[in-house]
Amino acid sequence: MAQRKVRDLRKLLAARARKRAARGAVGAPPSALHVPEQASQTAVQLLRYSSAGITSYKADDPGFWDESDELRWIDISGLSDAEQIAKIGQKLELHPLTIADLFHTGQRPKTEIAPKYIQIVLKMPVGGPPFEADQLTLILGQNFVLSIREHERDCLAPVRARLDDGSGRIRSSSAYLTYALIDTVIDTYFPLLESYGDVTEELEERILTKPQTGSVRVIHLLKRELLELRRALWPQREAVNALLRDDVPFFDDTLTTYLRDCSDHSFQLMDMVEVYREVSQGLVDLHLSSLSNRMNEVMKVLTIIATLFIPMTFIAGVYGMNFDRASPWNLPELSWRFGYLYALGLMATSSAIMLFIFWKLGWIFSGGDDNYRYGKPSDPPQKPE
Amino acid sequence: MAQRKVRDLRKLLAARARKRAARGAVGAPPSALHVPEQASQTAVQLLRYSSAGITSYKADDPGFWDESDELRWIDISGLSDAEQIAKIGQKLELHPLTIADLFHTGQRPKTEIAPKYIQIVLKMPVGGPPFEADQLTLILGQNFVLSIREHERDCLAPVRARLDDGSGRIRSSSAYLTYALIDTVIDTYFPLLESYGDVTEELEERILTKPQTGSVRVIHLLKRELLELRRALWPQREAVNALLRDDVPFFDDTLTTYLRDCSDHSFQLMDMVEVYREVSQGLVDLHLSSLSNRMNEVMKVLTIIATLFIPMTFIAGVYGMNFDRASPWNLPELSWRFGYLYALGLMATSSAIMLFIFWKLGWIFSGGDDNYRYGKPSDPPQKPE
Amino acid sequence: MAQRKVRDLRKLLAARARKRAARGAVGAPPSALHVPEQASQTAVQLLRYSSAGITSYKADDPGFWDESDELRWIDISGLSDAEQIAKIGQKLELHPLTIADLFHTGQRPKTEIAPKYIQIVLKMPVGGPPFEADQLTLILGQNFVLSIREHERDCLAPVRARLDDGSGRIRSSSAYLTYALIDTVIDTYFPLLESYGDVTEELEERILTKPQTGSVRVIHLLKRELLELRRALWPQREAVNALLRDDVPFFDDTLTTYLRDCSDHSFQLMDMVEVYREVSQGLVDLHLSSLSNRMNEVMKVLTIIATLFIPMTFIAGVYGMNFDRASPWNLPELSWRFGYLYALGLMATSSAIMLFIFWKLGWIFSGGDDNYRYGKPSDPPQKPE
Amino acid sequence: MAQRKVRDLRKLLAARARKRAARGAVGAPPSALHVPEQASQTAVQLLRYSSAGITSYKADDPGFWDESDELRWIDISGLSDAEQIAKIGQKLELHPLTIADLFHTGQRPKTEIAPKYIQIVLKMPVGGPPFEADQLTLILGQNFVLSIREHERDCLAPVRARLDDGSGRIRSSSAYLTYALIDTVIDTYFPLLESYGDVTEELEERILTKPQTGSVRVIHLLKRELLELRRALWPQREAVNALLRDDVPFFDDTLTTYLRDCSDHSFQLMDMVEVYREVSQGLVDLHLSSLSNRMNEVMKVLTIIATLFIPMTFIAGVYGMNFDRASPWNLPELSWRFGYLYALGLMATSSAIMLFIFWKLGWIFSGGDDNYRYGKPSDPPQKPE
Amino acid sequence: MAQRKVRDLRKLLAARARKRAARGAVGAPPSALHVPEQASQTAVQLLRYSSAGITSYKADDPGFWDESDELRWIDISGLSDAEQIAKIGQKLELHPLTIADLFHTGQRPKTEIAPKYIQIVLKMPVGGPPFEADQLTLILGQNFVLSIREHERDCLAPVRARLDDGSGRIRSSSAYLTYALIDTVIDTYFPLLESYGDVTEELEERILTKPQTGSVRVIHLLKRELLELRRALWPQREAVNALLRDDVPFFDDTLTTYLRDCSDHSFQLMDMVEVYREVSQGLVDLHLSSLSNRMNEVMKVLTIIATLFIPMTFIAGVYGMNFDRASPWNLPELSWRFGYLYALGLMATSSAIMLFIFWKLGWIFSGGDDNYRYGKPSDPPQKPE
Repeated sequence: MAQRKVRDLRKLLAARARKRAARGAVGAPPSALHVPEQASQTAVQLLRYSSAGITSYKADDPGFWDESDELRWIDISGLSDAEQIAKIGQKLELHPLTIADLFHTGQRPKTEIAPKYIQIVLKMPVGGPPFEADQLTLILGQNFVLSIREHERDCLAPVRARLDDGSGRIRSSSAYLTYALIDTVIDTYFPLLESYGDVTEELEERILTKPQTGSVRVIHLLKRELLELRRALWPQREAVNALLRDDVPFFDDTLTTYLRDCSDHSFQLMDMVEVYREVSQGLVDLHLSSLSNRMNEVMKVLTIIATLFIPMTFIAGVYGMNFDRASPWNLPELSWRFGYLYALGLMATSSAIMLFIFWKLGWIFSGGDDNYRYGKPSDPPQKPE
Repeated sequence: MAQRKVRDLRKLLAARARKRAARGAVGAPPSALHVPEQASQTAVQLLRYSSAGITSYKADDPGFWDESDELRWIDISGLSDAEQIAKIGQKLELHPLTIADLFHTGQRPKTEIAPKYIQIVLKMPVGGPPFEADQLTLILGQNFVLSIREHERDCLAPVRARLDDGSGRIRSSSAYLTYALIDTVIDTYFPLLESYGDVTEELEERILTKPQTGSVRVIHLLKRELLELRRALWPQREAVNALLRDDVPFFDDTLTTYLRDCSDHSFQLMDMVEVYREVSQGLVDLHLSSLSNRMNEVMKVLTIIATLFIPMTFIAGVYGMNFDRASPWNLPELSWRFGYLYALGLMATSSAIMLFIFWKLGWIFSGGDDNYRYGKPSDPPQKPE
Repeated sequence: MAQRKVRDLRKLLAARARKRAARGAVGAPPSALHVPEQASQTAVQLLRYSSAGITSYKADDPGFWDESDELRWIDISGLSDAEQIAKIGQKLELHPLTIADLFHTGQRPKTEIAPKYIQIVLKMPVGGPPFEADQLTLILGQNFVLSIREHERDCLAPVRARLDDGSGRIRSSSAYLTYALIDTVIDTYFPLLESYGDVTEELEERILTKPQTGSVRVIHLLKRELLELRRALWPQREAVNALLRDDVPFFDDTLTTYLRDCSDHSFQLMDMVEVYREVSQGLVDLHLSSLSNRMNEVMKVLTIIATLFIPMTFIAGVYGMNFDRASPWNLPELSWRFGYLYALGLMATSSAIMLFIFWKLGWIFSGGDDNYRYGKPSDPPQKPE
Repeated sequence: MAQRKVRDLRKLLAARARKRAARGAVGAPPSALHVPEQASQTAVQLLRYSSAGITSYKADDPGFWDESDELRWIDISGLSDAEQIAKIGQKLELHPLTIADLFHTGQRPKTEIAPKYIQIVLKMPVGGPPFEADQLTLILGQNFVLSIREHERDCLAPVRARLDDGSGRIRSSSAYLTYALIDTVIDTYFPLLESYGDVTEELEERILTKPQTGSVRVIHLLKRELLELRRALWPQREAVNALLRDDVPFFDDTLTTYLRDCSDHSFQLMDMVEVYREVSQGLVDLHLSSLSNRMNEVMKVLTIIATLFIPMTFIAGVYGMNFDRASPWNLPELSWRFGYLYALGLMATSSAIMLFIFWKLGWIFSGGDDNYRYGKPSDPPQKPE
Repeated sequence: MAQRKVRDLRKLLAARARKRAARGAVGAPPSALHVPEQASQTAVQLLRYSSAGITSYKADDPGFWDESDELRWIDISGLSDAEQIAKIGQKLELHPLTIADLFHTGQRPKTEIAPKYIQIVLKMPVGGPPFEADQLTLILGQNFVLSIREHERDCLAPVRARLDDGSGRIRSSSAYLTYALIDTVIDTYFPLLESYGDVTEELEERILTKPQTGSVRVIHLLKRELLELRRALWPQREAVNALLRDDVPFFDDTLTTYLRDCSDHSFQLMDMVEVYREVSQGLVDLHLSSLSNRMNEVMKVLTIIATLFIPMTFIAGVYGMNFDRASPWNLPELSWRFGYLYALGLMATSSAIMLFIFWKLGWIFSGGDDNYRYGKPSDPPQKPE
């Protein structure tokens, strides 16, 4: 079992280590394209949509780029085909640095406002716990949205369904679609965080009701996960807030209301992470205190047993001495008629004295002084008068 | 007893867990209405009031919406009937997102200023400790106040009484009524926090006068509660302060004075929470130190007993050996006339030496060096000269 | 002794608890007057002064309110007579909320700037340590100062003496008098903080030179006091700084120089509190470390004694066995001429080996490795070249 | 082995100590040139380049300074030849303080904007871990870049290669070259930090799977390194951001895009350092907890053995007493036919009782309660619906 | 030795306590002059200088105050003669509060900008470690500098030498002289901090290579010193930065460059203090961990010895029992021919089993698992590619 645990841990740490790879050689020109080592196969989905309907194009269909009043959504997953991605980037007139940035996985979430488009980098959780996130880059232009994900797996299916369905404002503008994508990414964190909340509370209950040796590792892993979540969420919040500033193009006043909703959710997520972090730090204290407590218990048992029997053993030792009984001064007790009973009585007395001392010190029969209850009956709930 | 404690704890944690549920599906359209799973039965109270008097309307009385110079207060408790609530929201010309927000329980307190109304989300404590809070959303428009609560229970009875009574400025404007509601919610935290203060101080006194094993759990639960309180109060303070900015509609200068009073109270609440948090953190240190201390005491007792008796037992063992007494070199003491007394004397001497060493080390008879008093007589109270 | 200590502690905590009472019922109208439960008897002192001289009036002398070029100082102590205080407040044209605020003891220090007057709430230390503070509210108007204290006791006698004396600028304006009062309140904290500094340093010296069991309680109480001081001083500093802003009425440029002096003192006080807080936190670490250290010492003594005697006792036990001596293979040592000496030698050898091992491990005769001195001779004091 | 470790540590600390030397005498005139004690031999590389090509000049070739449209790069390594460096500085019309600053190694990274040039001080990592950094000062003027390094070793080779190659914008302006140098320095931190990440994760895995005595030293050294990294990176981030402000000369809008990329990387580096720091702090807790845990285990073993055998030894002692068997009341068991078996049975019973108690207390056969798994099967991964 | 240590400590703490005395009575008029109790003898040095040369005047020479184009430097040490100092202050037209401030030793460093002069309060380190600082007040007017020090000792000799020498800009303006004085004070902290750095690193090395009991006291004293340094340096940095603001008189643009250099140094000092503080906090953790570790070692030794010998002693006890050998069931082993060897074999077996268990648990012969090396050969230094 412990063996399996170690294996799990190794896998977890290895998965995280794998994440840290995508970065060009030191000193390379800034606009050089660096395909990450374990990049997935590139797959391109082209959509043109208007309030009238949606048309899907093939990846190599040049008709997609024809002039039109329709809005475009280019959805790319997998970064292996640098050439194709760069070509699409050039068609959308992206800055070479922006194109290079698409391949840098492991970035912090950010919002970059270029003259003709907005680049938004997000972390999209995929499954979990344990928390794992792919990078999602959104490029919002006048009449297009480009979304690029590290891998095929994503959490955006509901948005595609709403776009197919066409109800609501989803087909009204590229900016609204961008909002819908951001909102969905952020909302995906809620069930994830709630399951961390469950883990935290289960741990808390276990430690409060039955402290355990192994828990501290689990607390450590939990803290580690929360640290990673915080690292993803903190800049994500800033990235969303950056869209709320006055001078951001594409997002008009009616959309700002929606974005503010997104920003509220980001704050709430950070709040949750911070609370769980603080609780899990408190659990470390609780665990250390319970270890210390248990040591106290162990030591008390040892001390009680030892101090009970050591004097008795000593008495037995004394009457086991071989002094010459010819002298009346040597070990006269041995010749007494009730010498044995006297010795046993002596032993019983020493034990009784010891037990009395322990009882006085409150080490035994102290009857669980633990019955101090939080919010006890003598504190009736406060009611507004 | 411990069993009951665990049960209490489970209930407490379960109650908190239940709170985290109200949130739409990931990726759902932002204005979709999501009724929380355990929503209470919706009850609507309609009031029209002016300085002249108050009229109460039935929930389905269309006359309530007739044009009039009177001010309106729509008070809703329970979120089960989404349709009815949405209809009222539409009558008040609320933004669809605002209507959807009414159903998201578990939000952070916030103030949202829309062109035609102000939305204020608060956490209203109900009973306690343990701290439990329902969400209260206030929508303040030109001539109406809409208040929506998660459940029937609330702490706003005094405001309704003042409105019935009609004295003071309470019927003068919707903004004043809103202020009165906010003020009451904030003031409700004072008795709650004071009872936490009592718990903190009782714990402090107990740990200072008689350290106990179980206290660390109670400290943990206390810290947890204070964390939840802080989580509610911190954004609430910001929400109130947001109403103090210059460009907030409805709140004129005379009301700002009242709101600043509210804001002062919020600061004071945060202050109290922070002090209790810091004290309870200090209690953890104190508790750990007292555990460590107690261990020292236990170890000293064991060490004293063991080191007293081990040499004596050894001496008894030596004179219990069976060496052949034919040789004059073997155990000659056994043949001495006063051999037994000599052995007992040897034992007494070794004990005396040990006791002397322990006394020198200050382990016994040290007479409680604990008499260092804080603010001792040699430090006369400082008086301004 | 310990008993007395506990009694002291209870009194201290009770005194602090008593402080938290003055607050109106939840939901009461904001301008309702709430007299604190244990309010002192109200005493009013009326003074009219100008550079020419001072006139003292009776509390009910209507002549005091006659128009005049003279400045007025109304000094009230004790809050029991709400009616009289309210009447004075109305005469000075205070806002009803300001009047109600006079009765809310336990506020945070603050500065409130109304159109026609400035309200300053301060915490005035009375005696101590332990730190106890009464609330002092100052209302500064065009030609009056109103000062209201919770109780008769105060620290403002030197200001009254200076006003009687009439030297300096003290009679020049109401604002200067207000400054003098604030300055005196702030300066009263210096001897108080210095006596906490003495306590901190005495504790530090005691723990460094002779660690004690009970100290951790004293540290806790000290930290608690410093927490209360910080809670009073932090907002007080803000309250003073608020008077330094450009748009504050009554305080002209010449007075700003004086106020900046006050503000410097506030900063210095905060500095002292923070240093003492950090030192006392360090003392907790030091104390825990010394407890841990002492445990090490105890354990070493036990281990040395036990490991010295246990092998010797074992040897004695072996030669106390009763194997049948008929067989030459059974316990032949018992028949040796020098068997007893051999056994004693065996015991001595085992002890010697053990002592050698302990000496190697550095547990005994290690000669106090504590002689590492801070700023040792080999580090000559650095001199600027 | 331990010996080697100590030697390594000494070398590490000595290397760091050596770093702290370069600073003029206290009170010396600010523009006095102070050559660091262990300065390397000065070597000067002069380059003139334009889009057309690159010309390399000898250090003493006066032709280099002829007027020309070409851009200049003066690259100096080693600070021993103060005169030559000062002469070059004067040719470039640097302020005397700027020239003196070139010799102050051990500065914080900073950006100083003079009227005619920008001075940028960076820390350039060389090799590692352990982290060691040389100071790199860049002076950017209208048509020149001056780069000065403490030692010959540097990490800028890729930039020189790109300049030789001439592709991209690298020869377009002095500001772009400066950007390329800064970018390369910052990127050099990534592999360094990643190897610290590897160390952190390896430590984490070791401590989680097999806690060790010596790890705490390694954690301390790791924390120390991360502290040094943070000390270098934090001001470096500010130095880069200072170049992003509006009023910085030489850096036009197109370059700002590149610099923002640099700034993003700096943020990301700080992020990594902070995460590693927090993880390594968590490892200290984990380690202490595992030490405490191990102590518990040791104590349990001692307690179990001692409490098993002490009662049995006592029984053996009792039946080893020499009471006079003439009296039927003395030790009658000794004469029983099955006395020995009875005694052995008594011993076995006492052991059994003890083992039963230990089993009840959960000290033995508790079967590893450590099987609580994080993200256990009963918690299926949350999927967006 | 320990005795001497305690004496040193007492002296150190007493010296610090002496520092806290200079402050007027509570409630005294703000411009009252309060001579500190242990003020040194006042000594006045009057200098008139211009680029042409320097003239020194006697303290009572009225000619010094004659009108002249020359600049004046009035240097006062010792505060005992309040009258003389006040007279000089009045001649320089200082505000009464500024004059009173000269006597308040123990202020925080600050910069106060009066209409006609600038007052700068600094902490000037004198000797050390231990850190001791005198207060230095600089008053910079149009054509004079007034410097006032608590005691004769100072660190400004190099500036006087430069003034005598006359080279550089030192005689060019009062502001430059002021800058030179500030710069020298700040630079004096560098060797001081470096010697604290040495102490920190020596401590670190000692604790890492050979943990010691007494170190925690030294760490505490070090932390205390660093706290005092921080308390002096933090506001000093602000005081210097205050001179960099746009509206500061006397300091023109050319001087600002010099002041910015000063400010950089202040930042660097704070940086060093923060790093040393964090390292010394880490040392506390390290020390506690090594104490805990050592306890583990002690307990293991005790446990091993006890568990080895306790079973053997028990066996010896069994065969020391006196059961009646007439019954064949009683202690038959005693009659065996090789009974003694059998008993010794039994003992050896029990020891062997115990040793095997300890070896399995990794308590003995575990061969120092401490050989985990930081930056081990398998991690080749990362090189930029």
